[in-house]
Amino acid sequence: MIEITLQNPIVQSYIIHVTILTAKLLLMATLTTTIRMTKGVFQNPEDAKLFRGEVKYDDTTVERVRRAHLNDLENIPAFWLLGALYITTGPWDTWAILLFRIFTVSRLVHTFVYAICPMPQPIRAIAYAIPFIIMLYMAVQIALFYITAI
Amino acid sequence: MIEITLQNPIVQSYIIHVTILTAKLLLMATLTTTIRMTKGVFQNPEDAKLFRGEVKYDDTTVERVRRAHLNDLENIPAFWLLGALYITTGPWDTWAILLFRIFTVSRLVHTFVYAICPMPQPIRAIAYAIPFIIMLYMAVQIALFYITAI
Amino acid sequence: MIEITLQNPIVQSYIIHVTILTAKLLLMATLTTTIRMTKGVFQNPEDAKLFRGEVKYDDTTVERVRRAHLNDLENIPAFWLLGALYITTGPWDTWAILLFRIFTVSRLVHTFVYAICPMPQPIRAIAYAIPFIIMLYMAVQIALFYITAI
Repeated sequence: MIEITLQNPIVQSYIIHVTILTAKLLLMATLTTTIRMTKGVFQNPEDAKLFRGEVKYDDTTVERVRRAHLNDLENIPAFWLLGALYITTGPWDTWAILLFRIFTVSRLVHTFVYAICPMPQPIRAIAYAIPFIIMLYMAVQIALFYITAI
Repeated sequence: MIEITLQNPIVQSYIIHVTILTAKLLLMATLTTTIRMTKGVFQNPEDAKLFRGEVKYDDTTVERVRRAHLNDLENIPAFWLLGALYITTGPWDTWAILLFRIFTVSRLVHTFVYAICPMPQPIRAIAYAIPFIIMLYMAVQIALFYITAI
Repeated sequence: MIEITLQNPIVQSYIIHVTILTAKLLLMATLTTTIRMTKGVFQNPEDAKLFRGEVKYDDTTVERVRRAHLNDLENIPAFWLLGALYITTGPWDTWAILLFRIFTVSRLVHTFVYAICPMPQPIRAIAYAIPFIIMLYMAVQIALFYITAI
């Protein structure tokens, strides 16, 4: 079985990709807040009071960004785990790093076509499906590798 | 203090159990999409247009699956972390692996009785409480072990 | 590049802080359940039946606690990842541990002023912004350290 070190190029590639994805995930909150302040719609009375806005839960733009944010929460943390465990199965460097790159770019595209500049389907569906399939592929590889440990 | 390696049977058991749980977490999205397409209810106008359905936020079946999904998000990632840190406290192999198995089976039961085949309470409450208590137990064990590091 | 061991004081400090934060995250569900049972408002008909309450999705107190819970989900797991990766960049012990402490205390304050005892803004905004900025700072440090691995 392989030894995982910080000198391993797959590990370094993993680190930089999950960091980019996580920064993006965090910035979804900043995007939501910016839109809330621009449109003056808030979730809490104390927020509405501070910014002289109103409490509203069905603003189309805000809810769209929140759905994109929730979709990130459902997918990006799963990649932290599956990406890390996939490395322990000893994949070919070039292949693993390629998967990390495709995953990251697809999720950035997903956010762009969902929350920033909404586009007709199936653009978002494709940007969602590619990283989703990569994660299921990784999960299968991990399961096959450690199957005796169940 | 113990050394954590990939040859450690608790580590291998951890890996296989979190992979199963995470694949299950991801598949909740597929379940939601399947139901949305069957019933023709969507969150975004561009989705409704593609599948000739309607935008609707209060479909009983869809919302039930979404609640089960959110409940997974509130519990499964917490287990990734607490399970991993619990291993570093050097628990007895058989005991730790037993906890991982009970956690995983209970969460699978939870999904089944919440989203697939809704059953009267307190079945779901029990399937929720068992893994929840396992996580609190692990958190206490970790805290006691590393208490001097606060 | 540094070697990461469980004897490293930053690692031990990380472990205890993320454990506290994750236990707190889990207990948000217990807080929600307690309030639901006190007020008799539930999400599922089978829950309402068991406790002789009603199905209701817009109870002010419950929804406030759920927003605080979701805010934790958007921030605490991101800290698990970024905190761990930040350690691999070899920061100064005292500085890293200080950041972990400030992050943890701020998130506890955030929960208190959001869900337990709601206070006028900008108290919650500050309790939110401090740990948020710490995470972005860590993400930048990680990215700069591993930039060649992109």
